[in-house]
Amino acid sequence: MQFSTIPYNLLGGEKKFGQYLTTGAWSEAAIKEAKKISSPVEVWPDSGAKFTTVPSVDKWQINKDAAYFHYCDNETIHGVEFPTTFPFDVIPEGMPLICDMSSNFCSRPVDWDKYGIVYAGAQKNVGPAGVCISVIRDDLIGTNMRKDTPLLFDWKTFRDAPTKFHNTPACYPIYVCGLNLAYMKRQGGLPHLEAEAARKSKFLYDFIDGSSDYYSNPVDPAYRSRMNIPFRVRKDDKLEAKFLKEAGEAGLIELKGHRSVGGCRASIYNAMPYEGVEALVNFMKKFRDENQ
Amino acid sequence: MQFSTIPYNLLGGEKKFGQYLTTGAWSEAAIKEAKKISSPVEVWPDSGAKFTTVPSVDKWQINKDAAYFHYCDNETIHGVEFPTTFPFDVIPEGMPLICDMSSNFCSRPVDWDKYGIVYAGAQKNVGPAGVCISVIRDDLIGTNMRKDTPLLFDWKTFRDAPTKFHNTPACYPIYVCGLNLAYMKRQGGLPHLEAEAARKSKFLYDFIDGSSDYYSNPVDPAYRSRMNIPFRVRKDDKLEAKFLKEAGEAGLIELKGHRSVGGCRASIYNAMPYEGVEALVNFMKKFRDENQ
Repeated sequence: MQFSTIPYNLLGGEKKFGQYLTTGAWSEAAIKEAKKISSPVEVWPDSGAKFTTVPSVDKWQINKDAAYFHYCDNETIHGVEFPTTFPFDVIPEGMPLICDMSSNFCSRPVDWDKYGIVYAGAQKNVGPAGVCISVIRDDLIGTNMRKDTPLLFDWKTFRDAPTKFHNTPACYPIYVCGLNLAYMKRQGGLPHLEAEAARKSKFLYDFIDGSSDYYSNPVDPAYRSRMNIPFRVRKDDKLEAKFLKEAGEAGLIELKGHRSVGGCRASIYNAMPYEGVEALVNFMKKFRDENQ
Repeated sequence: MQFSTIPYNLLGGEKKFGQYLTTGAWSEAAIKEAKKISSPVEVWPDSGAKFTTVPSVDKWQINKDAAYFHYCDNETIHGVEFPTTFPFDVIPEGMPLICDMSSNFCSRPVDWDKYGIVYAGAQKNVGPAGVCISVIRDDLIGTNMRKDTPLLFDWKTFRDAPTKFHNTPACYPIYVCGLNLAYMKRQGGLPHLEAEAARKSKFLYDFIDGSSDYYSNPVDPAYRSRMNIPFRVRKDDKLEAKFLKEAGEAGLIELKGHRSVGGCRASIYNAMPYEGVEALVNFMKKFRDENQ
């Protein structure tokens, strides 16, 4: 839960609040944590928590006095993802841009120069659960840290390891992440994974959109996630229960939507091959034919 | 670093400070964390940080208004361990007793009724790094929590999982811990592991004490650790460097003392067989004979 560490590490100086763009459950969780020790401001105060799109840039309320700007690149639960063309120009000069890339990290190249901090839980595209990857610009470490920062929230603790160890890290998950990073490189690296993500997600969205509303995805096409594709089956809870049961019997598992939004969700991370998406679409066709 | 979570979870009520018995580097780290957000009191204010013993109970300054009493059962770096007969009667009625058992957990039975909280990093006796085990009395969870408690410091977060997940836990390390717990049970459980720890450590301490000060251990025999045995070689840094080098060449590794105390240290956790300690003692004899 790397987002808890952000206000501790960045709000100990003159600037006492950060600003958050809330586009789904995870960016909402991030600002909720910041509120425990500071008074963050919202870039999009009237989101209404529907989370099916991102407002146009002219509607963003940018606060020039904020210590940082935080957003989530891909909302795992709501299936809202920023396109590669994030509007970097909107961020005031010198304000660190912080991005939660947990669920789309390593699915496309990153324009590192634009970011102050990028963080991501490993367990989506990188490796086993138990690892969080944080890429933090060196000048942001320790410079404006609050004095009450817990030892393992302090980014210096990790920058200074292994010279000075404070904890024993999750060695095995880290090791496996290394193996998988090497594997991804052999596959063709981020350009290859980006192309695959586009191919897989387009195939599924095209099928959903062409299903005459039997299946539906609520997200604005400009911000549809290539990783997490929530969908409804005739917007019918009962039919969805049947769908999930029969999908499970056919070997298609973990398709239940997050309990906070209901419905179904297909998470198609790097490890899911195109054939897996084909199998899902074939099952969806069969289910539709059998349940008219 | 479970100790950071203690003041957050227990100091949000009427009682605003905890008390700490400092007997080595880890109990010292725990009170240091508590100082960031509270004013903890010390049970043994004049420890002088030599950490080779525990003062007799009549010298403990017990504060009846403290929210809790914290101590560390086995100091990994200094090799100071409480005997099985911890003076539980000293703890005021109703005051939660909190114990860091990181480095001797699962090396002997625990009198669970005496504790409010026992916590332990898994990576010594239980399983791979990446897991912390916390056994917390249910009435201590959420009752006196500070409002600024970060999400992953909040003990409710973990008690309520898996009904309500907030994070993806380190599944693989947890799984391996389960395998090892089953293995320890098959070996004869905690009584067996306690007997082995006593047998192994006695063998090494007896050799050190009988070496006419060629080797020495600084710890009061009443509080010597059965897990971590720091020792010096003639109290001679140069000779110790030679000792460590040749030990490594003989396949005896990780014998260097923690950088904060120097010298050598043999950590003989559950996974180290008696034969490993024999091999070390045989090497120590040979080294002594060759370096008089």
